[in-house]
Amino acid sequence: MDSSIKRLAVLGSTGSIGQQTLDVVRALPHKFRIVGLAAGNNRDLLAEQITEFKPRFVCYHGKDASGRLADTDYELLSLEDIAHHPEVDRVVIATSGKSGLSPTLAAVRAGKTVCLANKESLVMAGKIIGEEARLNGAQILPIDSEHSAIWQCLSGEGQEVARLILTASGGPFRNYSSSQLNEVAVEQALKHPSWQMGPKVTIDSATLMNKGLEVIEAHWLFDMPFERIEVLIHPQSIIHSMVEFIDGSVKAQLSYPDMRLPIQYALSYPERLPNPQLPRLDWNRINNLTFEPPDLDTFPCLKLAIEAGKKGGTYPAVLCGADEAAVELFLSRRIRFGDIASYVGQTLEQHQAIANPTLEEIVAADAWAREKVRQMAEGDKR
Amino acid sequence: MDSSIKRLAVLGSTGSIGQQTLDVVRALPHKFRIVGLAAGNNRDLLAEQITEFKPRFVCYHGKDASGRLADTDYELLSLEDIAHHPEVDRVVIATSGKSGLSPTLAAVRAGKTVCLANKESLVMAGKIIGEEARLNGAQILPIDSEHSAIWQCLSGEGQEVARLILTASGGPFRNYSSSQLNEVAVEQALKHPSWQMGPKVTIDSATLMNKGLEVIEAHWLFDMPFERIEVLIHPQSIIHSMVEFIDGSVKAQLSYPDMRLPIQYALSYPERLPNPQLPRLDWNRINNLTFEPPDLDTFPCLKLAIEAGKKGGTYPAVLCGADEAAVELFLSRRIRFGDIASYVGQTLEQHQAIANPTLEEIVAADAWAREKVRQMAEGDKR
Repeated sequence: MDSSIKRLAVLGSTGSIGQQTLDVVRALPHKFRIVGLAAGNNRDLLAEQITEFKPRFVCYHGKDASGRLADTDYELLSLEDIAHHPEVDRVVIATSGKSGLSPTLAAVRAGKTVCLANKESLVMAGKIIGEEARLNGAQILPIDSEHSAIWQCLSGEGQEVARLILTASGGPFRNYSSSQLNEVAVEQALKHPSWQMGPKVTIDSATLMNKGLEVIEAHWLFDMPFERIEVLIHPQSIIHSMVEFIDGSVKAQLSYPDMRLPIQYALSYPERLPNPQLPRLDWNRINNLTFEPPDLDTFPCLKLAIEAGKKGGTYPAVLCGADEAAVELFLSRRIRFGDIASYVGQTLEQHQAIANPTLEEIVAADAWAREKVRQMAEGDKR
Repeated sequence: MDSSIKRLAVLGSTGSIGQQTLDVVRALPHKFRIVGLAAGNNRDLLAEQITEFKPRFVCYHGKDASGRLADTDYELLSLEDIAHHPEVDRVVIATSGKSGLSPTLAAVRAGKTVCLANKESLVMAGKIIGEEARLNGAQILPIDSEHSAIWQCLSGEGQEVARLILTASGGPFRNYSSSQLNEVAVEQALKHPSWQMGPKVTIDSATLMNKGLEVIEAHWLFDMPFERIEVLIHPQSIIHSMVEFIDGSVKAQLSYPDMRLPIQYALSYPERLPNPQLPRLDWNRINNLTFEPPDLDTFPCLKLAIEAGKKGGTYPAVLCGADEAAVELFLSRRIRFGDIASYVGQTLEQHQAIANPTLEEIVAADAWAREKVRQMAEGDKR
């Protein structure tokens, strides 16, 4: 095989990022080869993907996991075994929620290059993952558009960074009041004005929790104190984030909101590859880019996340667990939109934190938080 | 002397860029030392600068050039001798018009690092200067805010550039019609909405000739075909230019319009230095960045410049000479604002070009163009 072809494992291949990763590979077949695919709950799509890409390794966790998924010669492995397999050059972690944690660690411990779309791994266990990456010479390349933007802006620069400015679209409810927010329906919250994403991330974008998780992620990815990470609302989602340097110079990365660009950059780095399917900015159509500060009172999730990040220890894991549980309850119409923030806030308040947790303690804190939120919802129902 | 201190010669020290260069040195005295100063027509200010910075070498070309300028121990040298002196680490070429050409060449031939603010050198003789720089291992670091922005955006990137996008404020007459432009007074043209600059550059900004010269400069600095250099009007002058890469990703450099930043970056490169005097972008005050395509019909100088750049040979020298002469005539109120473009256009039309000119032929073409414009103005007067 041509040694310039990168061998990829895509964990979470049937989700939004996973599917777009496969789109990039389809557009650049001479550059990438899929050797591993993993999915959790879309058997039909995974079977199609296996038939198309003929991976060597497959992991499937959904219902009816027994039996062959497709008529190709693949081996069934665990997420972790795919993540650290010697035949894999880059691992795309595109699973959602805490399921990204274990394969991320496995890949990092094997010194792999990890293309990371899963936020929760770094938010929950950024310290442990960072230490393991340094120890084993693993590279973590961000796929999130904001972190990709920062990473691109840091290219060729030294340590002379003054602050990171994460931009946020502001979500579908940018100008809503707190009382309007309370009445928001699931359908409204699932309509994001600029990005096409999975349901969990879309709700997190509407509460600004997503931006809070990204602040914590940026803290670990770029080794940056929270005091030097800022959030700026930019509804057009053209500037994906910025870096201000110590001389006052600011660099920004721009593109239309299309996840295939940051995915491709993480796959191809340090190269950039031409891909005619990626849109070019048309400056005849972009007349106006606007900016405003975030409203932390109306969107308390952002504040809760940054506070949890600053406190550290098991707090970010509790944040993740409580948020994931609360979003699930909202999506199944058992709590209101405004309850997400109050449930997460109450769970954080009641948490007995551990300062330097082990992985097991992190996972336990996450589980405790999920259970706590479910109990709250039950209690409120009665 | 501390070897980390860079020894600077500032040619054109009494002009706008020269004075701002000295401001940067004042703010960072532990990083830079002025060893050479040169000016053409402001004896009093040069004398003050000599007294303050005590340079080893001085050049003065103005009236009453005889006699000591200040009571310090300096040696009188030519511009060229300062530019290639072994005691000079970086040469700042901040002279205006074609007077930058000869010291730029002298510095480049001596393998110096040249911080270049003078546009005309590269526009007139970009090919020769580029060849000499490669031959002698000289570095040319741009001081113009647009080229500095592009240079910063290219940092750490490979050759995978799709296009350069030079932003332009549009000048004070952005929404004027051609007939309104004809009636513009000198005082109006000297009021630039966002930048503080010398009179020649300010008029060139009002005609958009300045942007045309920058397109030609970018062509030589970044070895970029004219077809891949675009101009975009951005009245707020916050984004100083952008680079689009082959994957569709765009990087931009932003700051308030303050020439001290690109000056400092060229002086300190590859380091970035903290300078509390440089303003930080305040995103609570920046609500809106706007963009529009340039109007080439109303501002024909931009088109004339790009055409002259594409044709090459002696055309760009004729463009520079004709423009400098026409701007002088406008500033002394002998021609109208609209005449600048028509005189430059007619001069270019009448020019018998030389395809691969020597330096002497370039200088002769420039002189021919100046004379031609003066003749036209005389003819029109009669």
